[in-house]
Amino acid sequence: MSELRQNPATKEWVIVATERAKRPDDFAKKTVEPVKKPAYDSKCPFCPGNESLCTKEVFAYRENGTAPNTPGWTLKVVPNKFAALYPGELVRGGNFFKTMSGIGVHEVVVETPEHHLTMGTMSVEQIEKVISAYSERYHAISEDKRMDLITIFRNNGKSAGTSLEHPHSQIIGSPIVPVHIRYKIQEAVRYFDDTGRCVYCDALKEELAIKDKIVLETNEFVALEPFASKSPFETWILPKKHESSFKNINTAEKRDLAKVLREVLGKLYVGLNDPSYNMMIHSAPRQEDPADYYHWHIQIVPRITTPAGFELGSGIYINVVRPEDAAKFLREMRSS
Amino acid sequence: MSELRQNPATKEWVIVATERAKRPDDFAKKTVEPVKKPAYDSKCPFCPGNESLCTKEVFAYRENGTAPNTPGWTLKVVPNKFAALYPGELVRGGNFFKTMSGIGVHEVVVETPEHHLTMGTMSVEQIEKVISAYSERYHAISEDKRMDLITIFRNNGKSAGTSLEHPHSQIIGSPIVPVHIRYKIQEAVRYFDDTGRCVYCDALKEELAIKDKIVLETNEFVALEPFASKSPFETWILPKKHESSFKNINTAEKRDLAKVLREVLGKLYVGLNDPSYNMMIHSAPRQEDPADYYHWHIQIVPRITTPAGFELGSGIYINVVRPEDAAKFLREMRSS
Repeated sequence: MSELRQNPATKEWVIVATERAKRPDDFAKKTVEPVKKPAYDSKCPFCPGNESLCTKEVFAYRENGTAPNTPGWTLKVVPNKFAALYPGELVRGGNFFKTMSGIGVHEVVVETPEHHLTMGTMSVEQIEKVISAYSERYHAISEDKRMDLITIFRNNGKSAGTSLEHPHSQIIGSPIVPVHIRYKIQEAVRYFDDTGRCVYCDALKEELAIKDKIVLETNEFVALEPFASKSPFETWILPKKHESSFKNINTAEKRDLAKVLREVLGKLYVGLNDPSYNMMIHSAPRQEDPADYYHWHIQIVPRITTPAGFELGSGIYINVVRPEDAAKFLREMRSS
Repeated sequence: MSELRQNPATKEWVIVATERAKRPDDFAKKTVEPVKKPAYDSKCPFCPGNESLCTKEVFAYRENGTAPNTPGWTLKVVPNKFAALYPGELVRGGNFFKTMSGIGVHEVVVETPEHHLTMGTMSVEQIEKVISAYSERYHAISEDKRMDLITIFRNNGKSAGTSLEHPHSQIIGSPIVPVHIRYKIQEAVRYFDDTGRCVYCDALKEELAIKDKIVLETNEFVALEPFASKSPFETWILPKKHESSFKNINTAEKRDLAKVLREVLGKLYVGLNDPSYNMMIHSAPRQEDPADYYHWHIQIVPRITTPAGFELGSGIYINVVRPEDAAKFLREMRSS
């Protein structure tokens, strides 16, 4: 028999299909050894020395005395050359079919000069720099009050939709709050109105008591496989302290989060042989921050199975690995 | 500049990214010639003669005098061997984390005995049989009043999540209405409450007046590229007559729909070289049928681009082909 499970925060049901279930290491075995990448690629627009192939930096951490848009950076942020949204004037149009000019911010965080790394093999110190850059850019983009939602994400590997190997993340500031987010927040508000508490705080408390879906716990964060994971090895990282937006992350949390990300992504790298994945930082929209009902969190979705017609049609996902089994697999896995 | 476009029925915004835009035939050129498949595969559980490799048929169209579970069928329906949901008792459990036994119906429609065909190369007569089988099974599954939602879908090709080549569709009856569908219906209800009209009927009227996103129009159906298509060549087929569920399709509509599906899927087959795609038939849930506010429709999503972290995180899709351009491409494309 399979089991239907409901995500308490979003009310989404998933099917945990134990009849067609796979053991976690079925996924590990199926993949091949990670390809050895070179530390430098002469054609890569993000490698140092190739700054002429890249857009101009808007932010960087650099060695003292080096000039912008030359080597010497240890991390840099540049506008996306093939941006989805551009600076400009917000113009609304249409009547039955509504349009808006595609204004916004679309930046790339080049996480390290070293072409061959990924966040699961990088140093904790470097990841801390990445998190600081996220924070800097979040604040900078927030200055434009039209940017209602700021999404930080990382596409790792071809099946996760990236064509560039060089380790990078992206940040998009958009002038709308999509219904997808509105619905998620509505459910959290409903829970708050019923109980006076944040549903994510409560879920965290429950999970820490049950323990079987926890991957790791530190002073500031918990990494876990959600009860109603939509796909195998879906992993969430939540701050223990209630905060509605990543924007408000403090120094101690940045350091701690760097350790947690290195550990979790290292376990996925080793355990699933460098899988493709998407990582998203979910924060409350600008106009709902701070909020007692929403809790920022990081979602990591390995792209090792393919959502098909049933998932697209109904929104019900079929997950072939029990989150409890995935959590055990990751707890016991080394991270390098 | 890009353009943000809102789907009037769901209020979802998409980004039509004209800066990174591709011409429709960029997708055609990138793919290779369709692989020639054999008409019979001795290892395929769905090929005639291999009935012992397959679950027992629950429905079939057969040549006179042939016995169930032997060759002679021209179409058959069988339980999915690796079902997501099974017959059983509906048991609810959990407190904070809610569960339900994974009961339901999960069937496979083996569309034809001929291994090498797909709906884009099949005869119109055969497709009409497939539609009749959908209708028969929809009615049969509906008899179980616990089946709140019936989803008919077709996964075509590896990137669409199927492992079996033999032409087949699937039907899942599930004991829940997912929030994904609830939200979609809520928006349609809101529009109905405001205007007294069905938003899908109104969208159809608008599109038929504008014409630029219409792929084809028959007596009973319209095939079009929606104004806010989430991905290149997303195609919808809508009945002109208001009906909330596929369940109520009549004989004339079945015949007409067979022609439309053959034509549309044939154009995609030729134009994009046998692309992977998911096809879903969206109907109102059992308890909201009939409804003046919801309109059944078929959605075809070619899987030729990969939704990445921004799409997963925000629910905002970035589409690199203007629906107007996709519609023109398909209008001018031959279908065999």
